[in-house]
Amino acid sequence: MGSLKLQSFSVDVGCFPKFRVKKGNARSLLVRGSAVSSPQSVQDADLKVQKLKKAVRVGVLGASGYTGSEIIRLLANHPYFGITLMTADRKAGQSIGSVFPHLITQDLPDMIAIKDADFSNVDAVFCCLPHGTTQEVIKGLPKGPKIVDLSADFRLRNVDEYEKWYGQPHGAAELQKEAIYGLTEILREEIRNAWLVANPGCYPTSIQLPLVPLIKERLISLENIIIDAKSGVSGAGRGAKEANLYTEVSEGIHAYGITNHRHVPEIEQGLSDALQCKVTVSFTPHLMPMSRGMQSTIYVKMAQGVTIKDLYQQLVSTYEDEEFVKVLEKGAVPHTRNVRGSNYCFLNVFPDRIPGRAIIISVIDNLVKGASGQALQNLNLMMGFPENTGLQYQPLFP
Amino acid sequence: MGSLKLQSFSVDVGCFPKFRVKKGNARSLLVRGSAVSSPQSVQDADLKVQKLKKAVRVGVLGASGYTGSEIIRLLANHPYFGITLMTADRKAGQSIGSVFPHLITQDLPDMIAIKDADFSNVDAVFCCLPHGTTQEVIKGLPKGPKIVDLSADFRLRNVDEYEKWYGQPHGAAELQKEAIYGLTEILREEIRNAWLVANPGCYPTSIQLPLVPLIKERLISLENIIIDAKSGVSGAGRGAKEANLYTEVSEGIHAYGITNHRHVPEIEQGLSDALQCKVTVSFTPHLMPMSRGMQSTIYVKMAQGVTIKDLYQQLVSTYEDEEFVKVLEKGAVPHTRNVRGSNYCFLNVFPDRIPGRAIIISVIDNLVKGASGQALQNLNLMMGFPENTGLQYQPLFP
Amino acid sequence: MGSLKLQSFSVDVGCFPKFRVKKGNARSLLVRGSAVSSPQSVQDADLKVQKLKKAVRVGVLGASGYTGSEIIRLLANHPYFGITLMTADRKAGQSIGSVFPHLITQDLPDMIAIKDADFSNVDAVFCCLPHGTTQEVIKGLPKGPKIVDLSADFRLRNVDEYEKWYGQPHGAAELQKEAIYGLTEILREEIRNAWLVANPGCYPTSIQLPLVPLIKERLISLENIIIDAKSGVSGAGRGAKEANLYTEVSEGIHAYGITNHRHVPEIEQGLSDALQCKVTVSFTPHLMPMSRGMQSTIYVKMAQGVTIKDLYQQLVSTYEDEEFVKVLEKGAVPHTRNVRGSNYCFLNVFPDRIPGRAIIISVIDNLVKGASGQALQNLNLMMGFPENTGLQYQPLFP
Amino acid sequence: MGSLKLQSFSVDVGCFPKFRVKKGNARSLLVRGSAVSSPQSVQDADLKVQKLKKAVRVGVLGASGYTGSEIIRLLANHPYFGITLMTADRKAGQSIGSVFPHLITQDLPDMIAIKDADFSNVDAVFCCLPHGTTQEVIKGLPKGPKIVDLSADFRLRNVDEYEKWYGQPHGAAELQKEAIYGLTEILREEIRNAWLVANPGCYPTSIQLPLVPLIKERLISLENIIIDAKSGVSGAGRGAKEANLYTEVSEGIHAYGITNHRHVPEIEQGLSDALQCKVTVSFTPHLMPMSRGMQSTIYVKMAQGVTIKDLYQQLVSTYEDEEFVKVLEKGAVPHTRNVRGSNYCFLNVFPDRIPGRAIIISVIDNLVKGASGQALQNLNLMMGFPENTGLQYQPLFP
Repeated sequence: MGSLKLQSFSVDVGCFPKFRVKKGNARSLLVRGSAVSSPQSVQDADLKVQKLKKAVRVGVLGASGYTGSEIIRLLANHPYFGITLMTADRKAGQSIGSVFPHLITQDLPDMIAIKDADFSNVDAVFCCLPHGTTQEVIKGLPKGPKIVDLSADFRLRNVDEYEKWYGQPHGAAELQKEAIYGLTEILREEIRNAWLVANPGCYPTSIQLPLVPLIKERLISLENIIIDAKSGVSGAGRGAKEANLYTEVSEGIHAYGITNHRHVPEIEQGLSDALQCKVTVSFTPHLMPMSRGMQSTIYVKMAQGVTIKDLYQQLVSTYEDEEFVKVLEKGAVPHTRNVRGSNYCFLNVFPDRIPGRAIIISVIDNLVKGASGQALQNLNLMMGFPENTGLQYQPLFP
Repeated sequence: MGSLKLQSFSVDVGCFPKFRVKKGNARSLLVRGSAVSSPQSVQDADLKVQKLKKAVRVGVLGASGYTGSEIIRLLANHPYFGITLMTADRKAGQSIGSVFPHLITQDLPDMIAIKDADFSNVDAVFCCLPHGTTQEVIKGLPKGPKIVDLSADFRLRNVDEYEKWYGQPHGAAELQKEAIYGLTEILREEIRNAWLVANPGCYPTSIQLPLVPLIKERLISLENIIIDAKSGVSGAGRGAKEANLYTEVSEGIHAYGITNHRHVPEIEQGLSDALQCKVTVSFTPHLMPMSRGMQSTIYVKMAQGVTIKDLYQQLVSTYEDEEFVKVLEKGAVPHTRNVRGSNYCFLNVFPDRIPGRAIIISVIDNLVKGASGQALQNLNLMMGFPENTGLQYQPLFP
Repeated sequence: MGSLKLQSFSVDVGCFPKFRVKKGNARSLLVRGSAVSSPQSVQDADLKVQKLKKAVRVGVLGASGYTGSEIIRLLANHPYFGITLMTADRKAGQSIGSVFPHLITQDLPDMIAIKDADFSNVDAVFCCLPHGTTQEVIKGLPKGPKIVDLSADFRLRNVDEYEKWYGQPHGAAELQKEAIYGLTEILREEIRNAWLVANPGCYPTSIQLPLVPLIKERLISLENIIIDAKSGVSGAGRGAKEANLYTEVSEGIHAYGITNHRHVPEIEQGLSDALQCKVTVSFTPHLMPMSRGMQSTIYVKMAQGVTIKDLYQQLVSTYEDEEFVKVLEKGAVPHTRNVRGSNYCFLNVFPDRIPGRAIIISVIDNLVKGASGQALQNLNLMMGFPENTGLQYQPLFP
Repeated sequence: MGSLKLQSFSVDVGCFPKFRVKKGNARSLLVRGSAVSSPQSVQDADLKVQKLKKAVRVGVLGASGYTGSEIIRLLANHPYFGITLMTADRKAGQSIGSVFPHLITQDLPDMIAIKDADFSNVDAVFCCLPHGTTQEVIKGLPKGPKIVDLSADFRLRNVDEYEKWYGQPHGAAELQKEAIYGLTEILREEIRNAWLVANPGCYPTSIQLPLVPLIKERLISLENIIIDAKSGVSGAGRGAKEANLYTEVSEGIHAYGITNHRHVPEIEQGLSDALQCKVTVSFTPHLMPMSRGMQSTIYVKMAQGVTIKDLYQQLVSTYEDEEFVKVLEKGAVPHTRNVRGSNYCFLNVFPDRIPGRAIIISVIDNLVKGASGQALQNLNLMMGFPENTGLQYQPLFP
């Protein structure tokens, strides 16, 4: 099916890339970068052409939230993905510039209600809808488009677990079986062949990236994994809530969702999978006065005879060929602001004062690697493009 | 000696308090509040009189830093303590208003170099000097004034431990024996009779207040106490450092001093004292984009058979008569911003997902209960005044 | 008359006021200062007594918003005003601690719906309700309690002007005639004798304090008064609005309400009154990433022959006896953070590069001098107490 | 294989620039787009090739400051410019990752002292040194490399004016004559042919872009142009200064440099040039609690008979073909956060309440369009590349 679709955009049109994509490899690709463009007047014409010609027609469902706008930002410089459909029920009829003035220069279709969307014209869909509404929506979509769902609706394989944590029955249990969990670096091959990817939550991403390889290699104890996580406010979305007002958030910190944050079953599912062994974690998220960024400080006990150096080496060897997961130099402390706006995860591991224990720190931008960036990374894979396409933004600091 | 000094200012002068303090109880005190004053013109005259008449003449050494300015703020409405000496070597000759424009309305002596200070005219001293310089200074002071030292110089009873963590030999080992550790709620009676109080560090305050009573009652295991702490930037002082620039701190978080923060030995000393049993903790501080505030999230294992309810009850009963330490209602999460600017410590305890474990959260304002507020609380005690004098500021929110 | 009232509570019992208040119906109550208190157990008993004995029973209507909570914070240490009634329709039945956890230590009545309030038991009312709802509410109150209205509902003498700017007819035109505009330093004597005070808006306070005396003395031109104002987010209240989310406000600035902010007619009314001459101003407010604080940067043309020194001298002489309005030293720039949490207004005047022009800068805390602090200052006056009672908080910095 | 690909787009295809670079020795180099890359292992090899092959070898002098790091960020995705030299005297010997951990993934030469730099191997130089040191440095460079100087050292044509405002004699008066002021949209043709460009200051950029076309067309009065500007903290650089600490800047605002900010002569030079007529402006900058962003709110008097619509139309027609300067829709307010991280300037014009006056608002990111972005825009022009190369980042919001 993927190849069918690929054919549909491998046509050669003028200055636009003539290319052939073989599944999973980009070797014989003939590509022209879009990074260079001509003066504005020429460029405008170009843009139109280019817009028509972008090979993959992408729909963004729920485009008026922060993960939606982040998809749009990332696709702005993507050479193959062009947005041809945007839905936002409460903003239907509005332009992107009126909903997100920072994207006013983007030439995009107006938002429409999801019920008015014509999915026959899209090759892929980013689904940025709220948890609990997505199962029905995706069930109702025509077969064909590849889907990356950024909600939690397809992340838990066990539909009872879903019901328990989300307070409502799973609405698409049969589709759940086909959904692939989109933690790219860990499940790359499965994702490549998937048509429905459940994009991981932000906390689970920042936690599983360091822990899964360590658990797989039996380097850390499965008991008493204690995770103290800190998130920026954008993780709470753009909905108007008193708790997220500037005045309520700035200049302070507090924990929330202690023992019952909905990312817990997702984290435990991922860690349990690593060794096929049930893991229960201690997970305490905190809300920070920052818009973007997430840090997980993870306190673990090393397995008998294992040293910090072993943990470090394992992480280095797991990620040495990865573009987006970086194990820092020994002793260097990951800062959230050093990955802001980028798809990077920075990691490191430190000895604890308590003998036999280690402290692992990982940082991501919750809206990029923790949401829309990883979603794009996944769709690139699913469509047969190099995984980093459109994702090579360096972090914005300061 | 305390009573001698008390006599020296218990003379009745006009409207000013004629009072007798019986140790530990304020029952027969006749006091006049300063909260009500007259129109400005009258008041100005008043202020002068009042300034002369404030019973206790206080010196602030190192008045140009944040703990110094916070002492001044708190004393602005203190009915008995009047500042008559302020030192700041690098700002010698400057007025308070030029160093701290927010205190421009305070009628205070100019800053002088410490070498020019005349200590014969002060009854008490707040020592807000940098770590490592204070031992010599205090050794050189004339006997007489009561001293609250806000630096770390007298906090560690073991002078070898001091040398190990602070990188230089202790300069006043003999005085160390007389210094009392000023964690008010835990060591109140010792403080009352002390002449030299080592005011606790901010992290140690936020950590010991919840843990000491739980350890004393053997409710938690001494093993694997894991402390993930978050501090505002004011804890780093007013010195110009790149790492503390707005651009380097805002909109992000990072850990620092992992395994080697200097508050570690102080924390371990306090916890070890509780049961006369050596405790080693895991302690990871984080720098937050906020000026004030500190949270310690503490992960502990409960002793065999102990429940969350037991921990909660112990904290409640320990602190039910305390004005400044508040155990919140069951389930209520302490927020740093709810104690900002005040001397409160808010506490609570939560069940962990991992059976047998608990999560304890405590929050303080690092400059108040974590520094200058507790210092004043201590000096009030040492001078025989009600402990909360001058400290009844409600938190500033938002 | 002021002196009569002052006498009424200057009766000496020991040094502490036993007093009778004639106006305001708080007649024979006994009061005790709260500045010094005893250990907690004693104090708790005390508090109850104290609560009964606070001379003036105060109601706070709309206590669940930021101006309401700020009133409560300020009254926490007020020796005469005790809150006996709090309304908040949407939070009816809730305790103060559940609505404002930073006030959890305050022993206050639960919030009730305004329709359930018994106004026969209050001597004074702070009305912190939204604009447009207050006229009806105040019209419905029994005569007796003194009222300070923090909304805009009684600020505009011209009821047509009110209708024009607020989009609805004035609901209590007859009461409007009795309302006194509460800009304390300018209209002190009128306020002293008022029963209904329209507390000024935050922008108008920061603008009129410097401009009214300069206009009165004909030192500046009435033409082309250009005001560029910057406000913290708390001015927008606690209502959940997308525009005030942390993510929408932090790390940026923008203008709003250009040419049509509702404070314009209030500013122009105040400036026009100064010389009985219609003034039209240019007023552009900006929203800042800060919770509290307001700066007005005011660009004016000096009258013929007038110098910067003249402006400065006029401001100095106008405010030299005022406790809360401070003209800084020549060249010193007012910072909003230097008045945070306090009732101060800091002012200064600077020469412009353009000959004949001047730049005036004034800063206040929008929630204190710009709202609840000035409201308390006014009620103190109206009840015959020293104006600064309960208001002597020094600014909280950093 | 890489070379195959390179051939594929070095061909001239319709809308793509056929370019010849004469100066700068980059003539016959083959170039390859970096927007699409291959899996990491392949890519690493690629990167090395690419690094060798990037057509233009760029030096960054003063690479350890914020404008330096911003140059590096922008060049990370530039297809033709490759950094081959970085100097930073105080960080000599350090890697980019140790100085700017957010750039740790960039494969760049270590920093060296400027005295050790070999300029024979660079085709172009971004000079990010402090004001006052740059004239000597540039005077000492060999002829050849094109230079964009981000300091103020070559911005003022009148060397006496330079001496007056910068407190030292101009050190390269003869070079001053050859320097072209780099306000790209206004002086594009001159820049194209320059070898030494004085990149504009951030404030002057935000002010001249809207004002120069309006002045040129005589639409506004030259008298009483009043500019109230607000800047993020990064404009102050990375130097450790007390005034720029997080604790000193967060949650507040203040004016600074009133009447004597060094950008004044630059602004006045640019506005005076527009009509060859001396202009004196009122300019008051304010420091804001945000890392990036700058807003200028400009209050002007329209010329006789001119309307807001005229101003708006003039701005629209001036900038309609520009990629980076956007006049917003009528009534839409520019927000700094909507251009963060991008090279855009958003503009709009509003009627004032005072008849005949207008309010103009422009926003930029001070580090991008206000510094490094415009610098790159200029170097693109100077080297004959499309002006927007490497600059097509969409703003980062939230």
